[in-house]
Amino acid sequence: MPRSPAVAPAPDVPPRSPHVATPIETYLKSLHMSLSDVMAGEVASYIPELGLADPKKFGICIATVDGQLYSVGDAGCPFTIQSMSKPFMHGYALREHGQERVARQVGVEPTGDPFNSITLDDVNNRPFNPMVNAGAIAVAELMKGDNTSERTENMLDFFGQFAGRPLEIDEQVYRSEHATGHRNRAIAYMMLNTGMLSLPPEEVLETYFRQCSIRVTCRDMAVMAATLAAHGVNPLSGQRVLSPDHVRDVLSVMSTCGMYDYAGQWAFDVGLPAKSGVAGGVIAVIPGQLGIAVYSPPLDSVGNSIRGVAVCQKFAQDFSLHAYHDRTDIRSVIRREYTAGNVHSKRIRPARESAVLRAQGHRLVVFEVQGALFFGSTEKLIRRMAERSKEADVIVVDFKRAGFVDKAAIQLICQMARTLEPTRCRLVFTELGSFDALSDLHAAVDRERAETGVEIVPDTDRALEAYEEALLAEAGVSREEEKLSLGSLDLFEGLGTQELKLLESAVGTFRFDAGERIINEGDDAHLFFIVARGSVSISVTVEDGRSKRIGSVGPGYSFGEMALLDGEKRSADVTADVPVLCYGFSVARVREISAGYPNVMTVILGNIVRSISDRLRSANDEIRTLE
Amino acid sequence: MPRSPAVAPAPDVPPRSPHVATPIETYLKSLHMSLSDVMAGEVASYIPELGLADPKKFGICIATVDGQLYSVGDAGCPFTIQSMSKPFMHGYALREHGQERVARQVGVEPTGDPFNSITLDDVNNRPFNPMVNAGAIAVAELMKGDNTSERTENMLDFFGQFAGRPLEIDEQVYRSEHATGHRNRAIAYMMLNTGMLSLPPEEVLETYFRQCSIRVTCRDMAVMAATLAAHGVNPLSGQRVLSPDHVRDVLSVMSTCGMYDYAGQWAFDVGLPAKSGVAGGVIAVIPGQLGIAVYSPPLDSVGNSIRGVAVCQKFAQDFSLHAYHDRTDIRSVIRREYTAGNVHSKRIRPARESAVLRAQGHRLVVFEVQGALFFGSTEKLIRRMAERSKEADVIVVDFKRAGFVDKAAIQLICQMARTLEPTRCRLVFTELGSFDALSDLHAAVDRERAETGVEIVPDTDRALEAYEEALLAEAGVSREEEKLSLGSLDLFEGLGTQELKLLESAVGTFRFDAGERIINEGDDAHLFFIVARGSVSISVTVEDGRSKRIGSVGPGYSFGEMALLDGEKRSADVTADVPVLCYGFSVARVREISAGYPNVMTVILGNIVRSISDRLRSANDEIRTLE
Repeated sequence: MPRSPAVAPAPDVPPRSPHVATPIETYLKSLHMSLSDVMAGEVASYIPELGLADPKKFGICIATVDGQLYSVGDAGCPFTIQSMSKPFMHGYALREHGQERVARQVGVEPTGDPFNSITLDDVNNRPFNPMVNAGAIAVAELMKGDNTSERTENMLDFFGQFAGRPLEIDEQVYRSEHATGHRNRAIAYMMLNTGMLSLPPEEVLETYFRQCSIRVTCRDMAVMAATLAAHGVNPLSGQRVLSPDHVRDVLSVMSTCGMYDYAGQWAFDVGLPAKSGVAGGVIAVIPGQLGIAVYSPPLDSVGNSIRGVAVCQKFAQDFSLHAYHDRTDIRSVIRREYTAGNVHSKRIRPARESAVLRAQGHRLVVFEVQGALFFGSTEKLIRRMAERSKEADVIVVDFKRAGFVDKAAIQLICQMARTLEPTRCRLVFTELGSFDALSDLHAAVDRERAETGVEIVPDTDRALEAYEEALLAEAGVSREEEKLSLGSLDLFEGLGTQELKLLESAVGTFRFDAGERIINEGDDAHLFFIVARGSVSISVTVEDGRSKRIGSVGPGYSFGEMALLDGEKRSADVTADVPVLCYGFSVARVREISAGYPNVMTVILGNIVRSISDRLRSANDEIRTLE
Repeated sequence: MPRSPAVAPAPDVPPRSPHVATPIETYLKSLHMSLSDVMAGEVASYIPELGLADPKKFGICIATVDGQLYSVGDAGCPFTIQSMSKPFMHGYALREHGQERVARQVGVEPTGDPFNSITLDDVNNRPFNPMVNAGAIAVAELMKGDNTSERTENMLDFFGQFAGRPLEIDEQVYRSEHATGHRNRAIAYMMLNTGMLSLPPEEVLETYFRQCSIRVTCRDMAVMAATLAAHGVNPLSGQRVLSPDHVRDVLSVMSTCGMYDYAGQWAFDVGLPAKSGVAGGVIAVIPGQLGIAVYSPPLDSVGNSIRGVAVCQKFAQDFSLHAYHDRTDIRSVIRREYTAGNVHSKRIRPARESAVLRAQGHRLVVFEVQGALFFGSTEKLIRRMAERSKEADVIVVDFKRAGFVDKAAIQLICQMARTLEPTRCRLVFTELGSFDALSDLHAAVDRERAETGVEIVPDTDRALEAYEEALLAEAGVSREEEKLSLGSLDLFEGLGTQELKLLESAVGTFRFDAGERIINEGDDAHLFFIVARGSVSISVTVEDGRSKRIGSVGPGYSFGEMALLDGEKRSADVTADVPVLCYGFSVARVREISAGYPNVMTVILGNIVRSISDRLRSANDEIRTLE
């Protein structure tokens, strides 16, 4: 490729501004501007206080599930939540009383009737769903507390957990609701009459009028919607407000009943669970992605904010956010698949050991999984595990990059383990401690360990190292020799008897306690070592000052041999893993010997070249499995 | 870790059976068995021929979006598709006539009325939706063809594309439908009366009765549902049958209208787009994952297969398949992020060049993206790009592992490019040719290139190499020297003047044409080379016999130097990239020189050790960025 302008450094352009406006900010600004001129619709007036709203106010806010906020216009302007409170109250009732209790109070069927209909379901005598006023009043009865003030406190506390900040009631709107809410009174007394309410209607209505009068901003509502999108965890506070199962119930009802008799067309056009409020707010939820909130008071004939609906429609269409838009990609659940033949543990090994591992290592297969483990992705994983189990001794599943594991995935994985138990293929799970999200899987695997024989190992490197040791033992590679014969060492291969004898005069014996530092990075290098018993870890200091283990060395293998090159400093720390016995060679003495016998240095350097080349080849193999 | 039983090889267990029953097969068998005893419900009898069905027949089939089938029971038993044809006919009408034309024929609003209601929407005079009989008859009119036989042929061809095999009509059922379908006749004449139908009702009904009489099996229906789950691509044939937009429309209507007046509870309990047929079939679609089909003739009071509904409910619940179940994980859109400082191109470079790259390479940032690029994931990507653009000269986005890119992602990416254009940070996109799925993005980026300045480079390695060359030029590292001074080469650093003079006697000049092979893997090694002009590629043969380029070497750098070690064969092929001028050194002659001047070999081997150690360090750095 010729040197192109795009890849050339450009040192002479002035430093740029600290903030790069992202495409989403740009988009929202232009969407806001294009809809600012829309002057249709009427501000709600059935509650006098709402009629005072400024029809020109117009705010949009988007909150992502990881807490990024994009705001435009009057996103900080306060207004009352009104019917947008209903899905959250439904969530509260589910959390505090459970699905069964809530189902006795209210149904889940959409109705073609308007939101303030008095009709009840003839079969069960309950309101059709929690999104119509009758259903919401029935749900309001479930707010806990011995008196109005306790119930108000509990309610505000719950809504505040969703918004990520304390919320208050707009007392003027509340008084206006209270003074004029006669139709809602009628509904409440009707339900008292049919036995659906057990508390005095005025008490229940106090809660209902107050929930409608909670003062919020677009920003609050976007965060509340994003909390639903994040399956119940507030993206700002990180607090779990609702369980994923209750979020699922809330979103289901929002999707079929949230937009009243506009539900079918909304599902077709926008395809998102949504809810509007008569003060001019609309929220929509894109599960797993974000929450949208719009505030603009003028309403259409069915009581939805005109600009609010337009923003949701346009945004959903422009960014393909419809629930049934093509977006899933489960191909990548297995991030990489490799064997102990092409990826080795960090243990540095003599050539004869590496050769055994290259020949036999295919009998251990590692699956690195990534992303969300749910039915569809896990089905692919276990299908591949079943295939590989036909030839493998061991399957290691590395969960380090699993971002999420649901019950279905846990069930499939445990069942796969039970299926493999009678075969000769063993299962090892690693990195189960990487995320909180993995704790349920960890617990399930622990529980079934006796039945499945699954081994849990903290990290993959240790699982690889243990299997390598087992393979070498099986292959009869002798280990743990205390008295090494220099001629048998890779480092000295090719030297004559006379030369080896001379080298023996350069050796000293060194003992180190477990944990003792043998070599310090940066020091001058005067000795190189061969491990006789035990093992040592090699580690380097990485960017953030932490120490990272990059390898280990066991009996018969050398470390610090770069000391043979002129002027080299130690490039890593070396620490004894266990009590260690080493042979140390004086570099000065080896040089003296080489002055008389030049072959000594040439052979040793040649062997070092071979050994590092092998390690380079292994590293390149590993890079290929990672790419 | 002690040697555990799980990681030990187990050579003495007999070879296992070739098939490992996966947990999903096991699960389906047990589900099938547990529901086989359910004897409630009545086989449909309003069409006499359907009354003949065996109520004990019971089959389940699951098809994944990548074509894996799991079947149990009577999954191969033929039955007629009946109302399950409706969503597919809706899809056909959308494909052939577009959304606007179809919307004139039929609405998308759910209705509380039963499936065979004659009611039409008062505002538009059209049937409420394509899932009730009136709507399906209106849609049947849109089947193309000049006569019944052409229309039948077109219809069967379309359904066959969904099923992945040719389908036929069950003539006996068709005749039975035709003979007794008086209520459907009434509906059709009613629509003729209101002007909704323009063709003679009997002709339209011929199509409608035939579509209901298509003979299918569970297996067929599972594949048809999986084709919807795969957003319109048949997982067996790979053929695109319907566009993703039309699949979205079909699924939206299925989700709100597919289960008639059971829609709210179904959405709450199961949360999947679904459709049942009166012959006892039920399908459900899990977008992006799979299709489920069940066949069991006994029906409940609203006309749904009792076992069919039970299977869907149980399966969706046991495997958390509800549409609003928590499953999205967008954390992994950036697979890895690295700079030219910690990952280098495959160009092997002298130490002084590597030092420049390590010091300056942070000015190029590479994002490797993976998985699906849609709004939520792309928002994270571009947010991170905006952050890094503050300090980077170049941002490379590597799309090799992007499995899917939607319009929203394309729009955000192009807008990000326009946003960065006026800054000094340049954008380079690589690997856009990796998947068909990327072609729309590729085309959009191409179209906007003049405006955005985005550079498209085939692969990341070439983009890295070009930037490295630009950085080195900026740093004033001299290149392209034709007459090399041996003393300036890394390989000979540390040798005295006298020793260098001697080495000059071992040199010959070699010229190679572009593409000419210089070294063959496996050959004996007699020479090592230093590039004077041009560059060479080093490649190895990988598992499948293909050649893989693992590096390149330019002026001043050596290759084939492992020849200096006794008995080494060539470990890779080397080929000239362009016309190349090399210096070649005879290993035999260098050995002769070393016999008199041992320092020559010691210094050269020491330099080789340094150079390979550097490359090993780079490889380990790269592994760390990949992990």
